[in-house]
Formats: sequence, C-alpha cells, structure tokens
Amino acid sequence: MLKRWLGDVKESEFDTIEGNHNPVIIAGFGRVGQIVGRMLTLRHIPFTALERSPEQVDIVRRFGNRVYYGEPARLDLLRAAHADKAKMFVLAIDNAEDSLKIAQVVRRHFPQLDIYATARDRFHALRLLDVGVKYFVRETFHSSLKLSEVVLQGLGDSQERAMETVSVFAAFDEELLQKQQAVQHDESKLIQSAKEARAELQSLLESGVDGEIRIS
Amino acid sequence: MLKRWLGDVKESEFDTIEGNHNPVIIAGFGRVGQIVGRMLTLRHIPFTALERSPEQVDIVRRFGNRVYYGEPARLDLLRAAHADKAKMFVLAIDNAEDSLKIAQVVRRHFPQLDIYATARDRFHALRLLDVGVKYFVRETFHSSLKLSEVVLQGLGDSQERAMETVSVFAAFDEELLQKQQAVQHDESKLIQSAKEARAELQSLLESGVDGEIRIS
Repeated sequence: MLKRWLGDVKESEFDTIEGNHNPVIIAGFGRVGQIVGRMLTLRHIPFTALERSPEQVDIVRRFGNRVYYGEPARLDLLRAAHADKAKMFVLAIDNAEDSLKIAQVVRRHFPQLDIYATARDRFHALRLLDVGVKYFVRETFHSSLKLSEVVLQGLGDSQERAMETVSVFAAFDEELLQKQQAVQHDESKLIQSAKEARAELQSLLESGVDGEIRIS
Repeated sequence: MLKRWLGDVKESEFDTIEGNHNPVIIAGFGRVGQIVGRMLTLRHIPFTALERSPEQVDIVRRFGNRVYYGEPARLDLLRAAHADKAKMFVLAIDNAEDSLKIAQVVRRHFPQLDIYATARDRFHALRLLDVGVKYFVRETFHSSLKLSEVVLQGLGDSQERAMETVSVFAAFDEELLQKQQAVQHDESKLIQSAKEARAELQSLLESGVDGEIRIS
C-alpha cells in the first residue's frame, strides 16, 4: 500500500545516499522543495532531496517523503548524490547567502547541471542571474499576484479585469528585473529604474483602462 | 513628477495617520504586501499600509511607497487607520502567531472588514480558516507551482502537459486543505488524509496519462 504511491522508497542512514543516481536533485526540502518533489513523484520522476535541518527531515519523512539529511553546499554530499550524473538541480533554499554559495559550488564543479532556483526577493534573484542559474522564481511573487487578483475582485473588479491588471504587472515586473541586472550594484540607479518603470507601467495600464473601480 | 505616479503622498510622523479613511488596510508591508500595494496604486485605489519594522518602513519609503510604522495588532493603531470605515483588510504577515493575533483582533472589533490573508503554510492556513478569514493564499504555494511547471518542462514536458499536471495538483491540494480543516487538531488524521489524497491524485493523474517523461 505504502509502496504504491511512494514509488521506490529508499531507506537510508543520514548522510549516506544509496542506489543509482536520480536525474533531479532538490536542495532544500522546505515549502517549495516539497511541492516540486511531490509533483515529480506524481510523474514518477525520481529525485534526491537534500535538507540540512534534521527536524525538517523528520517531519517530511513522517508525511511520506524521501529526503536526506546533509549540507547541500558540501562537495562530498553533492558527489554522493551523484551530482555529476544528474540533469537538473532544484535550488530551493530561502536564505540568499546559503543559496548563492550552493549555486556557486554547483556551477563550478557540476557545470552540466541546469539550476532552477527560488529567490527570496529581487535582489537575490539578480545575484542568482549573475551566478548563472538557468531559471529562477521569486518565492512569494506568484502568491502575491494571486492575492492581488482576488483583492481586486473583492473590491469589485470582474475576474477578467483583475487578471488583466495582474498579468500586465507581472510581465512588466519580470522585464524590469532583467533590465535591473545591469545596474544591480548601484542602488540609486536601481531605485531610479523602479520609479521609471512604475510610471511607464501606469501609463501602459491607463491607456487600456475602461473605468476605475468604484469603492462603495 | 513624483506626485504624478505616487498619487496622494501623505507625509506623516511615525504612528500618526492623517487624512481620510482608505478603503483598504494592508497589515505587513513586506514582499507580499508591497506587491498588493503596488497593484492598488496602479488602479488608483488608496490604501493604508501598516508595518512594524522601522527598517522596512524606511526601505519601502525610499522606493516611493506609502507606509506607516506601527504594530497592526494594536487596537489604537487600527482605529487611527480608520479600520471601522474600511472595506478590506489585507493581512500580509508571515509569522503565523502574529498573523492570527491580528486576525482575531480585527474579527472581534471590526467585523465588517473582509480579511484577505497570506498563510505561511497549510497549518497556518487551517488556523486562519478557523478565525474566519474570507480568503487566504499560501505565500510560497503559487511560486512553487510555477517552479514545478518550469522544472517539468526542463525535463522534457510540453508546456501543455506541465501545466496540466500542475493545475490538477493545485486544484486537488486546495480541496484537500478544505477537507483537512475538519481534522486539523489530530496529527494522525492529518497525515492519513494527506496520504489518501496523494493516492487518489496519483490515480487521477494516471488515468489521463499519455506517456511518461523519458529522462535521457
């Protein structure tokens, strides 16, 4: 019964990873890493999860997940996880410094691995781009968009109109982030680019506006 | 120039909120609260933001946002923010205990306010439902879905197939959360419901499967 939905469960001592290599390594098995892992499990894609918090390892195991205890920045653990044979490295660590350290180790020693990362905020995201990650997602960005969409509807927007505002904002913000990569080490330029972008976005949205929300 | 895109900028001493009441109060002006606020600004919907961290207030002001320094659980601050006349309360506090405390104060003293909240995780979400919030979004959930979608595509999925897996998962997980509200105080039942749901989701997905991802 358990085996049916867990797939190949590997029992392992802490810090030792047995068996063949898996195509995906997930570093950090917290809120984000667990969802990626569950999605892979659903699709029968085996992965190796690395998590540095023993309490967290214990909790996620109780809920039936596969995860190994260890510090993902350590080269010996990465080798034990067969990072040299894996295809993808999911970096789901919310501490920006730790995340960047791991990204650097992986890029240096396992350059064949594509890194898909979570970023704490736009500053973390900009630094991940510098290190050469293939893709990043800001960890609270998409939930913020979702909340905004529901908030606008709660204030009287149609679903269509709320989604339009959110998608224009999101596309614009993602583009801004790419532009900001060039000026990320200059705070005044960063602030200036944020302000200019906001003015541009405002006029963009207003050119398509068919009436403001009325608050009763 | 500044005024053009900031709308009505109110200069205020810390802890004093002047001017008329705004229809929306945003408690917590961190990563989530700021995006909701920017979206409202774009749509010319005035809001009052409350943030307890002076450093955070300073940072967001430098980037041109309106925010007041204060502890959102304090009844006098809520009254000063005209919570009695507002329509919506956006609760964007990531600490679960603080968030629940504020939700309780708001529900008790300003029952006309609809609360739209972020939840740290599913346990926080379940407790918010208990307190009577109108809507919640788990703060890393939607970014986790987005990352999963891109990860599946990076492993060879078509965009369509990746999005299908993610949307089936998301709908199922949201439904599970509603079901878990009934058993949230019993850990063994919570674990059991998570396991049963996983088996059900697995078979649901597999009934529609047209071939597994092949990892080269």
